[in-house]
Amino acid sequence: MAVALIQGASRGLGFHFCKHILASREDALVLATCRRPSEADALRALQAEFPRRLALYPLDSTQETEVRRAAEAVAQEHAGLDLVVNCGALLHPRGRGETSLRDVAAQDLALTLATNSIGPLVVAKYFTPLLLNGTGAFGRQSPDPGKKHQAILVNMSARVGSIGDNALGGWYSYRMSKAALNMATKNLSIELRRGKAKVICVSLHPGTVDTDLSKPYHKNVPKGKLFSPEHSVNCLMSIINNLDMEQTGKFFAWDGSELPW
Amino acid sequence: MAVALIQGASRGLGFHFCKHILASREDALVLATCRRPSEADALRALQAEFPRRLALYPLDSTQETEVRRAAEAVAQEHAGLDLVVNCGALLHPRGRGETSLRDVAAQDLALTLATNSIGPLVVAKYFTPLLLNGTGAFGRQSPDPGKKHQAILVNMSARVGSIGDNALGGWYSYRMSKAALNMATKNLSIELRRGKAKVICVSLHPGTVDTDLSKPYHKNVPKGKLFSPEHSVNCLMSIINNLDMEQTGKFFAWDGSELPW
Repeated sequence: MAVALIQGASRGLGFHFCKHILASREDALVLATCRRPSEADALRALQAEFPRRLALYPLDSTQETEVRRAAEAVAQEHAGLDLVVNCGALLHPRGRGETSLRDVAAQDLALTLATNSIGPLVVAKYFTPLLLNGTGAFGRQSPDPGKKHQAILVNMSARVGSIGDNALGGWYSYRMSKAALNMATKNLSIELRRGKAKVICVSLHPGTVDTDLSKPYHKNVPKGKLFSPEHSVNCLMSIINNLDMEQTGKFFAWDGSELPW
Repeated sequence: MAVALIQGASRGLGFHFCKHILASREDALVLATCRRPSEADALRALQAEFPRRLALYPLDSTQETEVRRAAEAVAQEHAGLDLVVNCGALLHPRGRGETSLRDVAAQDLALTLATNSIGPLVVAKYFTPLLLNGTGAFGRQSPDPGKKHQAILVNMSARVGSIGDNALGGWYSYRMSKAALNMATKNLSIELRRGKAKVICVSLHPGTVDTDLSKPYHKNVPKGKLFSPEHSVNCLMSIINNLDMEQTGKFFAWDGSELPW
């Protein structure tokens, strides 16, 4: 069986990653994590549909002890993981990104960094032993035995986290958090290709997607540019399905193009 | 008079920026900030030497209220600022950067981000009204009246904060904090060149400098590559003295070369 863990799975992209993998791969088990599975109605409905292939785990990525416990619980049931997707993120604690410096507040920055940058790295820390034990069931295996990967780690980033691509400014907390996350991806890619480790680590940009996170901005998005989460996840999974070790440490958009840091 | 504010001035690069500016520009006033001026012996000795040109202000950049109060206190004495240099930083709360994922801890990341990324942005927030009122006494003024700058804001970053340049990994907290700071620089450069605002914002890499921050690593530095803080500040001030609005939003090393994000 292929085993995928989706962090931040109660809604938005995370939920749709679960749906997509369950529907498209009959050989896949999906481990969905979110802060409070008991309140995640959509996930529970999905579990009723796939009772043997979807498992729910409580995991608040901002609580390190809870991440460790979740990893221990997963390790009791599974020898390895083939895919981890870090989806949990917030735009801003008050719902809207800062339009100018005047809106910046230290506390908002700290909360955004905790969820969007620190959380995914802590998840990577505790689940790495399982990733190193993956069977490489996602991605494209190299014919070269020395380049075969064990697993894939995806950090959901965003184009606005690209410093080089930043032409508009604003959204201080969100942009800084995703730049820090991109550095985490790069660092992880270096550490997890050393010695026998072969874990592909990438940052992905999902496009502008119709989710709760982006809701306050939907009216500004040109027609046809606002993706459904199904469409975005479809694009992202086709990138993931084509990843090999040559692509580790990179930052890709939904259309497969590489983004600058 | 030219007015420069150095944040994190009690030691290391910050202290040497104060010394350098006092010694090299007789027309300059230096406002030195640090957490506890009463305990900053080197700064107090420098103040005894330059009683009319050096003023000390308490400012802990991780306490937003204190940053606001410091800005209010400075505004009582000065109509504008020509230069702000954010120097306050830590390598890691435990003194050494993480060598691998195993060393990563959420709390250490949060503290490092608070000091190295959030603090400098909060300083920028509260001192921007004074920067917008600067006389452009540092940097190189453009002959084009539309391109004359009011002031310069420098964030002390580090080459290891470059995602594109990262080949070695490790130092998760420090690297992520400087990548986030570089995004702050880029965002500030965009906001502070709009309309009448003309504040040059850059990130600078000081080289590997003999300071408390880098002390645990000195023995690994090849001979001749470990700079004295005097030498580093000398190089950085010559970059600062040559900045104009064309360079805003960039990331320069001590030798003037531009670094990738």
